[in-house]
Amino acid sequence: MNLILLFCEDFIAPFDKTSSSTGRVALQGRRLQHIQNVHKSAIGDTLSVGLLNGKIGQGIIISLSTDVCVLDIILCKPAPAPLPLTLLIALPRPKMLKRILQTCATMGVKKIILINSYRVEKSFWQSPLLTPKSINEQLVLGLEQAKDTILPDVILEKRFKPFVEDTLSHLAKGKRKLIAHPNEKFQAPTRSNEDTLLAVGPEGGFIQYEVDKLLAMGFSGIDLGPRILRVETAIPVLLAQLF
Amino acid sequence: MNLILLFCEDFIAPFDKTSSSTGRVALQGRRLQHIQNVHKSAIGDTLSVGLLNGKIGQGIIISLSTDVCVLDIILCKPAPAPLPLTLLIALPRPKMLKRILQTCATMGVKKIILINSYRVEKSFWQSPLLTPKSINEQLVLGLEQAKDTILPDVILEKRFKPFVEDTLSHLAKGKRKLIAHPNEKFQAPTRSNEDTLLAVGPEGGFIQYEVDKLLAMGFSGIDLGPRILRVETAIPVLLAQLF
Repeated sequence: MNLILLFCEDFIAPFDKTSSSTGRVALQGRRLQHIQNVHKSAIGDTLSVGLLNGKIGQGIIISLSTDVCVLDIILCKPAPAPLPLTLLIALPRPKMLKRILQTCATMGVKKIILINSYRVEKSFWQSPLLTPKSINEQLVLGLEQAKDTILPDVILEKRFKPFVEDTLSHLAKGKRKLIAHPNEKFQAPTRSNEDTLLAVGPEGGFIQYEVDKLLAMGFSGIDLGPRILRVETAIPVLLAQLF
Repeated sequence: MNLILLFCEDFIAPFDKTSSSTGRVALQGRRLQHIQNVHKSAIGDTLSVGLLNGKIGQGIIISLSTDVCVLDIILCKPAPAPLPLTLLIALPRPKMLKRILQTCATMGVKKIILINSYRVEKSFWQSPLLTPKSINEQLVLGLEQAKDTILPDVILEKRFKPFVEDTLSHLAKGKRKLIAHPNEKFQAPTRSNEDTLLAVGPEGGFIQYEVDKLLAMGFSGIDLGPRILRVETAIPVLLAQLF
């Protein structure tokens, strides 16, 4: 938690939304524990804070007990720049999904579409980790790590074919369209600031039908070399090489 | 397990070490279960195999039961190229260490030195995950993922100052020397095939004394931008951007 993410309901005094927004917040639970046990903060200490979907800044601790921490905050800086990316990921197994959502939020991905694929186990779609509340918990952890405030948008698309045929062409318009898939004939990733749509398959990869479907939609294949990476490793590597 | 890693003790028929090495192996336990439950293989199927610290190739299943899988193997190709890298990592917390060792092995790091740092909790050095057996288990998982066979070398250096003062200058000779540390004044990573020595700090980062010590040894600082990444994300990002 390199930044304490604040929510509207944390405010106990009117929020002055001028160019340098100020206000007073009261924190309990996970954030209070973090302030006490990790930061080991005391009254008068300053902490990095940010308002969900708003600016980042500083908070000064004005009272601290085992029940609550009250901070006076000033928010003056914009959140770090997002990546110009829409990420299509074949739904990973739940344990991996948690880490992938955190990593995506940390690295600045703002639009994530979890798609179905032949090699996605059906049971993954029943995971309690796919509730909006649970997804947001992971995203918040990722934002706090990155000192970011802008919550990514996560969309679930449970059917591959209708999604690709009906929705994808609209999404893809004007974008660099890439599918990451092990294939010696595909090129290595190249850096660009272009608006990008990147598809990443499941463990075991997209099947040929899925690859062909995306290639037919104008996607270009990119390949990360002979070493097969786990999806949770492939995503940071791809983002690091594409932007 | 994209490749089944074989060990000398798996061989049940003499290993013919000609240019295309052949032999017969019998597999039980974890690898047998993987062949049955994940690959869902049958007699006659061909699987990717590789000999620890040796070549990679194919194995054909000649018998398969709930107790044992026997394969006739042929090893003809070298393992994928390693990264020209010695990685110094401040010892991560045990749970993260497992994933980091796997990721390093998958990405082709062949020399890993786990070092102490002010922000490494002393208890981490007592972790049962630091036994050679446990470290090798994680490395093998990473190699199997990458279709690699060359086991990385992992060294533990429990004291920062003696290591830096007595051992590091020898290790660093002739290498590109980099310390990854958040600092706006440091440069972004650049690609090179040079032999590289890269130091990565713990969660919370190296302390200034440690940074200064490495800079004084001729290390250059590199910075990954305003977003603070977890060590397990920073490592694949660094490797993706440096080579």
